[in-house]
Amino acid sequence: MYRVAIVGASGYTGGELLRILAVHPQVEVSVATSREYAGKFVYYAHPHLRGFYKLKFKKLDNPDQLSEVVGDVDLVFLALPHKVSLHYVPKALEIGLKVVDLSADYRLKRLEDYKIWYGYEHPYPDILEKAVYGIPELYSEKIKGAQLVANPGCNASSSILATVPVAAEGLIDLDHLVVDVKVGSSEAGAKPYRGGHHPEREGTARPYDASGHRHVAELEQVLREFTGRDVKVAFTPHAVSMIRGSLASAYSWLTRDVSELDVQRAYAKFYAKKPFVKIVRGAPMPYPDVKNVYGSNYAEVGFAVDKRVGRIAMFAAIDNLMKGAAGVAVQNMNLMLGLPEDEGLKYLVPVRP
Amino acid sequence: MYRVAIVGASGYTGGELLRILAVHPQVEVSVATSREYAGKFVYYAHPHLRGFYKLKFKKLDNPDQLSEVVGDVDLVFLALPHKVSLHYVPKALEIGLKVVDLSADYRLKRLEDYKIWYGYEHPYPDILEKAVYGIPELYSEKIKGAQLVANPGCNASSSILATVPVAAEGLIDLDHLVVDVKVGSSEAGAKPYRGGHHPEREGTARPYDASGHRHVAELEQVLREFTGRDVKVAFTPHAVSMIRGSLASAYSWLTRDVSELDVQRAYAKFYAKKPFVKIVRGAPMPYPDVKNVYGSNYAEVGFAVDKRVGRIAMFAAIDNLMKGAAGVAVQNMNLMLGLPEDEGLKYLVPVRP
Amino acid sequence: MYRVAIVGASGYTGGELLRILAVHPQVEVSVATSREYAGKFVYYAHPHLRGFYKLKFKKLDNPDQLSEVVGDVDLVFLALPHKVSLHYVPKALEIGLKVVDLSADYRLKRLEDYKIWYGYEHPYPDILEKAVYGIPELYSEKIKGAQLVANPGCNASSSILATVPVAAEGLIDLDHLVVDVKVGSSEAGAKPYRGGHHPEREGTARPYDASGHRHVAELEQVLREFTGRDVKVAFTPHAVSMIRGSLASAYSWLTRDVSELDVQRAYAKFYAKKPFVKIVRGAPMPYPDVKNVYGSNYAEVGFAVDKRVGRIAMFAAIDNLMKGAAGVAVQNMNLMLGLPEDEGLKYLVPVRP
Amino acid sequence: MYRVAIVGASGYTGGELLRILAVHPQVEVSVATSREYAGKFVYYAHPHLRGFYKLKFKKLDNPDQLSEVVGDVDLVFLALPHKVSLHYVPKALEIGLKVVDLSADYRLKRLEDYKIWYGYEHPYPDILEKAVYGIPELYSEKIKGAQLVANPGCNASSSILATVPVAAEGLIDLDHLVVDVKVGSSEAGAKPYRGGHHPEREGTARPYDASGHRHVAELEQVLREFTGRDVKVAFTPHAVSMIRGSLASAYSWLTRDVSELDVQRAYAKFYAKKPFVKIVRGAPMPYPDVKNVYGSNYAEVGFAVDKRVGRIAMFAAIDNLMKGAAGVAVQNMNLMLGLPEDEGLKYLVPVRP
Repeated sequence: MYRVAIVGASGYTGGELLRILAVHPQVEVSVATSREYAGKFVYYAHPHLRGFYKLKFKKLDNPDQLSEVVGDVDLVFLALPHKVSLHYVPKALEIGLKVVDLSADYRLKRLEDYKIWYGYEHPYPDILEKAVYGIPELYSEKIKGAQLVANPGCNASSSILATVPVAAEGLIDLDHLVVDVKVGSSEAGAKPYRGGHHPEREGTARPYDASGHRHVAELEQVLREFTGRDVKVAFTPHAVSMIRGSLASAYSWLTRDVSELDVQRAYAKFYAKKPFVKIVRGAPMPYPDVKNVYGSNYAEVGFAVDKRVGRIAMFAAIDNLMKGAAGVAVQNMNLMLGLPEDEGLKYLVPVRP
Repeated sequence: MYRVAIVGASGYTGGELLRILAVHPQVEVSVATSREYAGKFVYYAHPHLRGFYKLKFKKLDNPDQLSEVVGDVDLVFLALPHKVSLHYVPKALEIGLKVVDLSADYRLKRLEDYKIWYGYEHPYPDILEKAVYGIPELYSEKIKGAQLVANPGCNASSSILATVPVAAEGLIDLDHLVVDVKVGSSEAGAKPYRGGHHPEREGTARPYDASGHRHVAELEQVLREFTGRDVKVAFTPHAVSMIRGSLASAYSWLTRDVSELDVQRAYAKFYAKKPFVKIVRGAPMPYPDVKNVYGSNYAEVGFAVDKRVGRIAMFAAIDNLMKGAAGVAVQNMNLMLGLPEDEGLKYLVPVRP
Repeated sequence: MYRVAIVGASGYTGGELLRILAVHPQVEVSVATSREYAGKFVYYAHPHLRGFYKLKFKKLDNPDQLSEVVGDVDLVFLALPHKVSLHYVPKALEIGLKVVDLSADYRLKRLEDYKIWYGYEHPYPDILEKAVYGIPELYSEKIKGAQLVANPGCNASSSILATVPVAAEGLIDLDHLVVDVKVGSSEAGAKPYRGGHHPEREGTARPYDASGHRHVAELEQVLREFTGRDVKVAFTPHAVSMIRGSLASAYSWLTRDVSELDVQRAYAKFYAKKPFVKIVRGAPMPYPDVKNVYGSNYAEVGFAVDKRVGRIAMFAAIDNLMKGAAGVAVQNMNLMLGLPEDEGLKYLVPVRP
Repeated sequence: MYRVAIVGASGYTGGELLRILAVHPQVEVSVATSREYAGKFVYYAHPHLRGFYKLKFKKLDNPDQLSEVVGDVDLVFLALPHKVSLHYVPKALEIGLKVVDLSADYRLKRLEDYKIWYGYEHPYPDILEKAVYGIPELYSEKIKGAQLVANPGCNASSSILATVPVAAEGLIDLDHLVVDVKVGSSEAGAKPYRGGHHPEREGTARPYDASGHRHVAELEQVLREFTGRDVKVAFTPHAVSMIRGSLASAYSWLTRDVSELDVQRAYAKFYAKKPFVKIVRGAPMPYPDVKNVYGSNYAEVGFAVDKRVGRIAMFAAIDNLMKGAAGVAVQNMNLMLGLPEDEGLKYLVPVRP
């Protein structure tokens, strides 16, 4: 039985890690930290986990306490805010832990990108270089050997899963690529704020960060790697009226006269033997729907060609807390620990309706 | 007091017409027809209207009965299915009625478009020529003199309101125009069907008609008129988890180096003195939200420029049953009857939260 | 044109007062106060009201500033927290204003009840005596002559409207009266908090304050007045997954063998000529539904007799922000100012679906 | 590996059986029938199950085909409509299958109850006698030895779990027992109908069947068994705005001066070693919430005493499709097959938020 720690376990991502690992056959959570709930049982933050854990949240105030608080585990999940995780990662590596970092602090490869998107100078370029971006459908071999995995952003994940197979084949006009994401309220985390207050959020459909959203940097980085050229994406997330789900709708123009079958083959080849990607096509539902992956680590991927316009629409639907955060984090953990990629995740059949 | 009839009054659009006209100061509904509810009080179909009407639904089986059933009114709203309305319009005009037709049967100008988008040969090209497309923000003068107004589709309305002011100014690359619409469940009407069943629809976010949606023909027609050239739009509607609302998010690339202020001026000029369009910008909410227009005839219009990418996002949010159907139908009626454009509509302040 | 002020106008109740009064034919809002939004336009707090007001929020820090800030108005709405309103009321009366107080501070008649339910000694027993409890269906004559109206709690309103007509006729066993209320998220106000965070509140159905909720004191007070005896009610509110609405389901046992028609007559007699109460019975929907009154000042009232058990169920559905707060406040204002009871409210036809 | 069949597998209950059994370690579904989807893959009816089954729906038109279609399985789930299941049960027993019947046809013990509640004369009194009512928390020993288990109604289950432990101890006034249930839209099944159409159902809170709901017969039968006397319950279900969940709020008056601790002990004793019942009390959430059991087989049970009134409120929250239907059906199956009670169910940690 492997032992793991979750640092910052009282938020929604921490809660989902606890939910998944509560029934993981080969891993157990031996430490969960929370400053707000320190000393309380984990069900104080996550009432649905009553009965699944006897664990109490521990307090962890700074990276120097990591060794003492987290102790002797095999791997640590850092579910901390951006810029906070930044300094925990070096310490965790130093004491020999494998790390899955759920913040954005080690996702980007180019130092200058941290200044542009996050407004700080990255203090650990050496560690950055070793970090592996954690989308197993793209980088499973690297993840297996990694000490540090930077878990991706949820909207980046859906966008990447939708576009990369087609972009990598050179099928689309990379100078004109639009991504429109629809995302649920849990994306913003467990902390109450005005825009997430139920009467404000329910029934809404509105864009946000429309002049530039940080997750686009992850998408552009991956596209750069898979196409060998710089790509700038017109990216806009939207808050819609649901709790979970990230649906990426990407649009571009076809570079040549390809058939729908060609497109389908591109996806099928790319996602061959990937246990959590379902390519959706034809009856009964021709396109992905976030509802079909609710509560699970699965992604639905699909597309449509509008021949009249020469346009392709590429879609991916995920559960933002699962395949977009905690689910993929456990998938990464499995790879890092040498376990089967889907261990503890295949039980989580989507809940629908 | 003007008298109007509503043919096909048991659906959601008919219900909203009844709701609005129940308190219109200068118009009363003297006839409402429904085959399903014939002989029953209107509150059988619309329980919230109990107490507002003593009216019973009349039966109307075919266009020949129109004169007898509808009788002596000033204007008739046809809220009938596509292809059914087609044959009621000539009969209504023949007996001297002004007509607001809420179907798609007289919206398009080019005969060939009916074959392409609706699969039939239009039998009344002469009448088609006289029909005025009913978006008052674009065609108010024509509407004032019209005998027949073709009320626009809801997703066409939001898309047109978002894009035309900027397209007409030549600010965007018309060869690369994407429209991504998010729409509520009421758009599909009152008739139960599997995809609209509550357990199926609530919590969903999924594209539909992604290979080509009919409403794009209306948008392209208007863009052609305002830009003087053919435009093909990459258009994709999405079902999201709400009852009402159509949010159009349109994306294109700027043709030249324009400032955000230039864009704002283009909108401000276009919508000057238009009582139902609000240009949204800055605090407290920088972009349109369907929640802000719920239950009303207002449209919120806004935009964002992503300078890094050279991209502009253009947004419009409407209530699909109001500004997207019954509300704009009453606005058109007001103009046709010589009443103030906002008569009976300005009372309908949006309900939020 | 009458002029009114709204003190505490940035919350949901304040927002609804502004929405209603924006189109009231005989009343205008000349002052709106908010500490949080002082100096900002009212649409900062209420984005849907953009375009309806040029008004900016004023600052009002304590009762002594009332005269200066509120100035020369005919009536003031106090939409302040409990215990804060307490001290504004005497000051407002002193400077000659009519007052509709939306807090709980003047709702109860017995001094000891403030200790029991709100934990304080009421400092103004004289004023308390003059306050009229603001349910116009019960006390319209008193309200007409009142200087101070204590606007009822939303769950108290639905419970009172459901039960009093039947209780007053002696039809039910007052020793066994249960009230189970289902209420929307807006009831808790505009301030974000954990239980009202969208991911926490959407999809929920849970009781709260199950050992005793304050609104029961209002219900028991009214029942005492209408039955001439002390009544203790088993009262439990529930948070359910909607924004608006308060549905009271009250249960008791019939004292004698009454027919459904007898019950219906009791309601019909009690609510004769009450413009905002609809008695619901038979097709198409046999019982009240909050959906049928959404956004309006209407109440649906209905009942069912289970002969097998000898039980009667009494229901009332209201919009908690309207008939449960701002709507009834305007109805009270109309009566106090000598205007028609439904002035400015009859336009607000419920929005459904 | 045990093999089971699901007859009527295209509805929501059938879908949940398939979801659960897809990952059950000791049971596999070898046959699933559906008339509507006969010949199609199971994911046609259940798009989220794409990838989990290679199975196609088989056709089964009448009980005589049962042997041929279902073949050689260990147990059959009948997820058929009431009155249809009636005739499948004898046939299934005849060919030696164990049966979990999810209809109401074998739930009631007294023959006359079928006339009263379902309007038919029960044709198989002998089989009825052998049927065991399938609430394992009450009847696990009988279920272990049963050939036929009648799976309970969802609202009956929540009501029974809430009330029986306290009623059995003689703590409440059985002459005055009220049950008010709030239930999600999936309860009515997968077939579209007007009241379940998304625009009609979302945002609603309304009672239904308020003059007498069939599930009360199950509750009264169980209370009769556990108290030794006839009990008539005032029972009213309510449709609220969510997909899943059944929350029973039961109210009665205490027969003697018991402390909250006494009540808690009654529950604790009754549910000792019951793996799927959680007694909820104190921080962080003092009462059950359907949100805490979403997607799982768990039940939350709790209570509140209002000393002022002498009233007790008893609550139980379940997922109506899981603990209220398919989950408990698998729990019953486990017992009938001699497997651990929670086999295949403990993985299903509730999804929240």
